[in-house]
Amino acid sequence: MYLFYAPDLNPADCFLNEEESRHCAKVLRLQKDDLIEIVDGKGFFYRAKISVPDPKKTCFEILDSESGFGKRNHYLHIAIAPTKNIERLEWFIEKATEIGIDEITPILCQHSERKIINHERLNKVVTSAMKQSLKAYHPKLNQLTAFSSLVRDNNNSQKWIAYCGDTKKTSIKEALLLQQNYLVLIGPEGDFSPQEIKLGLENGFKAITLGQSRLRTETAALEACFEVNFLNR
Amino acid sequence: MYLFYAPDLNPADCFLNEEESRHCAKVLRLQKDDLIEIVDGKGFFYRAKISVPDPKKTCFEILDSESGFGKRNHYLHIAIAPTKNIERLEWFIEKATEIGIDEITPILCQHSERKIINHERLNKVVTSAMKQSLKAYHPKLNQLTAFSSLVRDNNNSQKWIAYCGDTKKTSIKEALLLQQNYLVLIGPEGDFSPQEIKLGLENGFKAITLGQSRLRTETAALEACFEVNFLNR
Repeated sequence: MYLFYAPDLNPADCFLNEEESRHCAKVLRLQKDDLIEIVDGKGFFYRAKISVPDPKKTCFEILDSESGFGKRNHYLHIAIAPTKNIERLEWFIEKATEIGIDEITPILCQHSERKIINHERLNKVVTSAMKQSLKAYHPKLNQLTAFSSLVRDNNNSQKWIAYCGDTKKTSIKEALLLQQNYLVLIGPEGDFSPQEIKLGLENGFKAITLGQSRLRTETAALEACFEVNFLNR
Repeated sequence: MYLFYAPDLNPADCFLNEEESRHCAKVLRLQKDDLIEIVDGKGFFYRAKISVPDPKKTCFEILDSESGFGKRNHYLHIAIAPTKNIERLEWFIEKATEIGIDEITPILCQHSERKIINHERLNKVVTSAMKQSLKAYHPKLNQLTAFSSLVRDNNNSQKWIAYCGDTKKTSIKEALLLQQNYLVLIGPEGDFSPQEIKLGLENGFKAITLGQSRLRTETAALEACFEVNFLNR
């Protein structure tokens, strides 16, 4: 069954946007009365029937719907410094979306080598992974944000910063309270600067370790994503 | 500090192979008396001093050594059907090496779209990830193996097969006994065939689930790798 994404779906007037319409009617050549599935990125999952297969504006009729489809029992926000090789960040975004994440913020740090991102392109990675892994919630991908702004301006209940220094750290396993709203900070290839770590700790972030292995930026972020989801199962 | 890999290191006659010598003396331009670190892939970690910086055969003197460096408390073997897009398998190999794995077998299944692999190239991914993540054990990468041979011929103590069907399954968390010798089978994009699943179950493999999400082949394999490592911490 083919799955489409209709972020602004209005059940009273159901159609796919131009990109999805083209995919549906032109690439897949679906016909009138073919069955499709649709998610709106906000938790709604629809089964539907194509009424007008048009590559500009494909219309459909909803057969049944489900809200809160695959809703998770916690909220996970990971802030990660974009990797020098952007494919590594894209890979993280894809995998985190598959495994389970709610919000991703690319952060600009003192040691960041990459200072710009293509938000639209990265958001397409999110959308594609969401569809591929059959999820009805579209993780929120924020614009590139300064580390200091994010650290000061957030309202998560459990906040962690992962870095390499020798400070005493706790593991997520020890620190995690179930079903919370988590924020994890993952630094760039050159790690967070001492000033950034200080600012994080002053703003209520706890230092965490992600195990004994020396992990790349994107692997560390994925490890955090795995751990939070796994512990909340 | 630069880390080199010397798989056949003989402490009585210490030198780097041609590839590593070139990297050391030509690319990095290291000099006589520069300090380096070396792993042999079998658990030995050495600190050493360059005695002859030669791009064909760089020689060094060992200053101190450690055996069983970063030795893990369990043995994890993952058998995975190579993905159609080989980059996805390469990603898995890199990430699994970073997180912790002992043996990887690419398996040929009935639904495999990819029937050949470049073993040498994939093994370079292992080596590179091992060095990058500062590990002294080189995971063993086997040649492409028929599913049926692997399923019949192995001596692991806990054996699991992950597939999508609706059978009753257990989670790794429920099934795992600590510090064992695990083997996990991960199927191709089109999943294992019913005959393969039957053969697996007949040969003592237990059906496992890797959570609620629909995961790609390489993500499923990494999820299994993560779970086994995490539970054994």
